[in-house]
Amino acid sequence: MKRAFEVRCKCSSTGARTGILQTRHGPVKTPVFMPVGTQATVKALTPGELLELGAQIILGNTYHLYLRPGHKVIKALGGLHRFMNWHRPILTDSGGFQVYSLATFRKIEEEGAIFRSHIDGSLHKLTPELAIEIQEALGADIMMALDTCIPYPSPEQETKKATELTTRWARRCLSARTRKELLLFGIVQGGMFKHLRTRHTEELLSLDFDGYALGGLSVGEPKDLLFEMIECCRPLIPDHFPCYVMGVGTPEDMVQCVSLGVDMFDCVMPTRNARNGMLFTSFGHIVIKNSRFVSDDSPVDPECNCYTCKNYSRAYLRHLFMSRELLAYRLNTIHNLHYYLGLLTDIRAAIRQDRFEDFKREFYSKRAG
Amino acid sequence: MKRAFEVRCKCSSTGARTGILQTRHGPVKTPVFMPVGTQATVKALTPGELLELGAQIILGNTYHLYLRPGHKVIKALGGLHRFMNWHRPILTDSGGFQVYSLATFRKIEEEGAIFRSHIDGSLHKLTPELAIEIQEALGADIMMALDTCIPYPSPEQETKKATELTTRWARRCLSARTRKELLLFGIVQGGMFKHLRTRHTEELLSLDFDGYALGGLSVGEPKDLLFEMIECCRPLIPDHFPCYVMGVGTPEDMVQCVSLGVDMFDCVMPTRNARNGMLFTSFGHIVIKNSRFVSDDSPVDPECNCYTCKNYSRAYLRHLFMSRELLAYRLNTIHNLHYYLGLLTDIRAAIRQDRFEDFKREFYSKRAG
Repeated sequence: MKRAFEVRCKCSSTGARTGILQTRHGPVKTPVFMPVGTQATVKALTPGELLELGAQIILGNTYHLYLRPGHKVIKALGGLHRFMNWHRPILTDSGGFQVYSLATFRKIEEEGAIFRSHIDGSLHKLTPELAIEIQEALGADIMMALDTCIPYPSPEQETKKATELTTRWARRCLSARTRKELLLFGIVQGGMFKHLRTRHTEELLSLDFDGYALGGLSVGEPKDLLFEMIECCRPLIPDHFPCYVMGVGTPEDMVQCVSLGVDMFDCVMPTRNARNGMLFTSFGHIVIKNSRFVSDDSPVDPECNCYTCKNYSRAYLRHLFMSRELLAYRLNTIHNLHYYLGLLTDIRAAIRQDRFEDFKREFYSKRAG
Repeated sequence: MKRAFEVRCKCSSTGARTGILQTRHGPVKTPVFMPVGTQATVKALTPGELLELGAQIILGNTYHLYLRPGHKVIKALGGLHRFMNWHRPILTDSGGFQVYSLATFRKIEEEGAIFRSHIDGSLHKLTPELAIEIQEALGADIMMALDTCIPYPSPEQETKKATELTTRWARRCLSARTRKELLLFGIVQGGMFKHLRTRHTEELLSLDFDGYALGGLSVGEPKDLLFEMIECCRPLIPDHFPCYVMGVGTPEDMVQCVSLGVDMFDCVMPTRNARNGMLFTSFGHIVIKNSRFVSDDSPVDPECNCYTCKNYSRAYLRHLFMSRELLAYRLNTIHNLHYYLGLLTDIRAAIRQDRFEDFKREFYSKRAG
């Protein structure tokens, strides 16, 4: 059987690796950062801008698109790619995490997750079968199996129960799948318990997924726990599967995860922080509303060659932000995504040239200012 | 003396005309619509998008930029063009209208307008001298003299007083001017009284302005009064001066004004309505949140070739708007400005080919649906 994923280069001193993930909308070079496009748009940007920024793949959201405008509407309009005018790969989250984090009411049953919409309070039941139906209707290149999310910290018994249910849901997702050309990834849960994580990874590996995600991380746990969980699961996953750590994270966290062998990332941080005026740079971050920027004629990051840094001063960006101008969110988002996507480009180059460990050391020292 | 403005073609059956207005950032073909960029940005768009839309000149605002970030800040950063990365002409409003419409407190004295900032309540006095100082600091290609605005309707005596004060302020603006390469326009007031409008036009014409604006219109008066005031003043202004009707207006109003010989327009309507989901088309307007668009795969206007119409369905635009996505405001603004700027391009072509009267008839019949 032809695998969707193939490792290309391996770092000689860390677990870092480059690879290619084939999707029906083209190949994705890993390690990759996927900008979040929750509601069929990466907030404030056009698809043309995303292409210019070098985005290879973006994230869509089952929960949001099911509630609004509805997956049947999007299907009737030719699928999510056509709807939003993005013709490269899309990965859709299964909705499990949003039911947990956004719904105003939720109850997890064997059958599925019952929840109330955060938009209008209407009652819904998201089953594994429905999660697949939605994602197939959207035409996601990569679908995620429906998982159950639990708060951090959670007691072992509760974690065990939720993890076992996730396995049963994973099987049902695989059975419900009708479009084999859309990849389907399983999501490893197990809270912060290594033995539960290990067992769950092994259980999911015995099923027929195209890739594996580590879920339930980056939920408020200490950083060492995050890396411990990855170090526990990652080596169990054979090289011919891509490994995706969901919701990670800061630039520092991504670099560390790459060195542990992680291939895929998503996070709202670059886009959300942009809208809050927090901008990433090679030497740390800056808060654009700071009054010291009022007359600062220099770009956000003198080393950056994004559209924003090439054309605008910190003073102008501060003015736009203070004036709550729509252009502020857009220019800031362009800058932050350029930083994130550029970081992953640099990481891939460093791995290919087998100098990732040097890269990592320099990266941390520079970012620490 | 070399005049900044020159008429090129005259319609044989109406007062419509084309012309060229020379500014230090290049020529402007008239009749022209000037998108409003109040706070050093045309809301939601980049300068690149404005160029692509064919914008020749945009509006900036003395009142807003004086309060935030401050004209001295912008001057220190190289002027408004450099600050906002727009290198074509800019006209700046004098602030008179914003003091009238936005300030939380105002008092008109001989010396100037005392007002409280709508941002922080701080007290300011905008004099004719300060209005010119601010606009010269911004480096506006076209500055406007400070005028006094009155509500509609206003009694004759009050109107007369305000109009006479506007003349005295106009003289002070001319005296305060130090940068002769920046054009300065006078603003005709006079409320809805023809004899006051006539006298004020003549008074201002006796002064040394580069162009004339009709102010205090489009403030809630019936349409026939608006056109009556234009018909009364416009013929008094010699052909070698451009005539600008401030704050007009709807597409229909602009076409009518052009046929009365008006050369320049500005209005928040295309940009503000875009953000409220009201989209202009060749056959009238549509309200994008209307539920009949939920699955509508067609573009906003099948005859439109703007970026928005070429790439997105009404269904997608409705989804973005209902989801309050930032991209909604941007795509809608692109469409509406494309409509407005395209309308003026068509008007100029019709006048050049001396078929403006036919154009006008077809335009009204089509827009009426």
